[in-house]
Amino acid sequence: MSEFFNVLTPIRAWQRLIEHYQPAARPEQVQTTQALDRFLAAALRAPHDLPEFPRSTVDGYAVRAADTYGASPSLPAFLDVVGEVAMGEQADLEVGLGQTAIVHTGGMAPSGADASVMVENTQAADEHSIEILTSVAVGENVIQIGEDVRKGAKILEVGHRLRPQDVGGLLALGLTEITVARSPRVAIISSGDEVIPPDQTPGPGQVRDINTYTLAMLAQRAGAVAVSYDIVPDQREALEETVRHAIETCDIVVLSAGSSVSYRDMSVDVLGALGEPGILAHGVSIRPGKPTIVAVAMGKALFGLPGNPVSAMVLFDLFVSPTIRLNLGAAPFDAFKPQLQARLSRQVASAAGREDHIQVRLEERHGELWAVPVFGKSNLIYTLVHADGVVRVHLDSLGIEQDAWVMVTLHQ
Amino acid sequence: MSEFFNVLTPIRAWQRLIEHYQPAARPEQVQTTQALDRFLAAALRAPHDLPEFPRSTVDGYAVRAADTYGASPSLPAFLDVVGEVAMGEQADLEVGLGQTAIVHTGGMAPSGADASVMVENTQAADEHSIEILTSVAVGENVIQIGEDVRKGAKILEVGHRLRPQDVGGLLALGLTEITVARSPRVAIISSGDEVIPPDQTPGPGQVRDINTYTLAMLAQRAGAVAVSYDIVPDQREALEETVRHAIETCDIVVLSAGSSVSYRDMSVDVLGALGEPGILAHGVSIRPGKPTIVAVAMGKALFGLPGNPVSAMVLFDLFVSPTIRLNLGAAPFDAFKPQLQARLSRQVASAAGREDHIQVRLEERHGELWAVPVFGKSNLIYTLVHADGVVRVHLDSLGIEQDAWVMVTLHQ
Repeated sequence: MSEFFNVLTPIRAWQRLIEHYQPAARPEQVQTTQALDRFLAAALRAPHDLPEFPRSTVDGYAVRAADTYGASPSLPAFLDVVGEVAMGEQADLEVGLGQTAIVHTGGMAPSGADASVMVENTQAADEHSIEILTSVAVGENVIQIGEDVRKGAKILEVGHRLRPQDVGGLLALGLTEITVARSPRVAIISSGDEVIPPDQTPGPGQVRDINTYTLAMLAQRAGAVAVSYDIVPDQREALEETVRHAIETCDIVVLSAGSSVSYRDMSVDVLGALGEPGILAHGVSIRPGKPTIVAVAMGKALFGLPGNPVSAMVLFDLFVSPTIRLNLGAAPFDAFKPQLQARLSRQVASAAGREDHIQVRLEERHGELWAVPVFGKSNLIYTLVHADGVVRVHLDSLGIEQDAWVMVTLHQ
Repeated sequence: MSEFFNVLTPIRAWQRLIEHYQPAARPEQVQTTQALDRFLAAALRAPHDLPEFPRSTVDGYAVRAADTYGASPSLPAFLDVVGEVAMGEQADLEVGLGQTAIVHTGGMAPSGADASVMVENTQAADEHSIEILTSVAVGENVIQIGEDVRKGAKILEVGHRLRPQDVGGLLALGLTEITVARSPRVAIISSGDEVIPPDQTPGPGQVRDINTYTLAMLAQRAGAVAVSYDIVPDQREALEETVRHAIETCDIVVLSAGSSVSYRDMSVDVLGALGEPGILAHGVSIRPGKPTIVAVAMGKALFGLPGNPVSAMVLFDLFVSPTIRLNLGAAPFDAFKPQLQARLSRQVASAAGREDHIQVRLEERHGELWAVPVFGKSNLIYTLVHADGVVRVHLDSLGIEQDAWVMVTLHQ
């Protein structure tokens, strides 16, 4: 049995990968209304000013600000009401000196006016005039042309993932079709003679397939299209054939092979026989997840993840999701991944030279948030089910003291 | 013009709502593999132990721990190799005193053995026996029956939203079909004579519809099915007809009416004419978003949101998303909503009695995270586009000092 011959730290394994793998995002056109969570393939600029006409932000009266100077409840300014600007229509009246017009929130400010007075700060005088009870400055209660966004201004960057408000901003500018990165295809291949589909009843020594489903879900969340293969038996030819098919039709191939050394050896053999540069890391100094393979061949990124579902999910997050983001033209590591600060409920030990990922449950105790390690051997899926997040223990650290503040990266 | 007659604090408006509105989650059966992000409608218990047989966690040798006591590289224990447990098969051999069997990671531990020794801690002696170079304790390197989860143990709570790892945990137990809460239907109705579909070119005074799309996306993210209506013109009959249709076919109705007082009055008229208890809050002491209506009629929750897209989105998050979660049997407010601690780059003023929601951009400066307020009038959609999150200023606060630590709730 060959054992680990090239164990790298997680960061070094990632560096080796991107030395040999620099995918370009491939653009495609989509309807903006269908583009939630997609990644922009080109920076976008505003095709026109927003708004394109000055808009009142209040219900009240459009005025020349100078007409209101010094106005107060005890000494109001009297203005002639020359009309009303209907919603959704051109304000085709003109507000002259000593004049005003009724405006509504969001309505167009009429020509001549340079501010609005809220209706609460006015009082009817007679049929054709009102009292203004306060003074307003030029521009007050009015959104100017281009105040939301100026024509030509860069509105969103390449690689940005669209949120609901971004879609709103694009639609407001009439950008109903945009260029996003094509979602990369990620092949998910589970193998192992002991692995059976989840709707079957396992016999002695057999376990139900989890990885085909959980890894596909993680891939989709990261922005990819998951392509799930049937469980591959423990035969080199079968595995190699499936991997070759996956390389031809997908951008990223994820192998979740059985967890024993013989399976790992088989994965190494298959992933190493596909051409240069081949295997870049065989083993990563991380717990759980040490028996991980990182490879590049035929221009595709290939990963051999441990068969046990906890390690597979942790390593998917660390290596495959960032690789998906590379394919989408985004920064590989999400800068604002949700984290919470909490106190560690008990000491955890680690080993120097190994990055530990401690699954934790969050508990509020007397108004303070605590991270409670969910112990259990690393390959128990229910340690993950019971966990709210994960605490990383740095390579150089020998552990973390009880009561220490730690950052918890939340599972989502 | 009638103005606010019943302005409530956000918490009081919420309390009034739930005094009159206690929806029950309605269960439906779905395939577990399709249940990502769905909410459980019933607590789940493990139908059997996991694993159902003892499994080795290492590649190596199944042993009786007692046979290894005192073993070391200089004084190894010699054991007879009686066979090998193949992956995925019953371990039908028996490990007796002084005996061992080859096992693989994840394979079944054979009868008689109570621990495993890693292959690295062994050495071949002759064809039929090996040297054990270390001692192991009973249970070491073996997962016991039910160690992952015990038969009958509660595995997930009612109202829990399924993550990839949860789906994995269910599939591992053969729970391929589960009961989740039916997704509530949320009607999204935009109205206003100035509002036109986003693929049309606005004339003077007109604006493109944003809310129909952004609110639908927020509804879907919260776990609902969004039902979007065509833009309703500024006519009471048309609005009432649409709202009545929505109430009959949906669980929650969201009106995003034009932003002027006359539209708001019309919304109040329509939402108030549908029966008891009717309008519960007319105006909420929050900025942006004061002109918000909360109502219950015909057993449905009804919301009149401000027409401007920023206020509409902020208020949707505050009121509609929690109402969707109520319909899903979940806690209305997500306890672990992602937040980051950052320092406020400049002072912000607020008014006592008003909860302010300050949109902020996050910036790293010299290794510290700063929250930079994105200023702009509240109805500029690009304040939201440029924001990474929001800082809430409490009702009783007059503002927050520059450089203060604040919690930023991240936009997602």
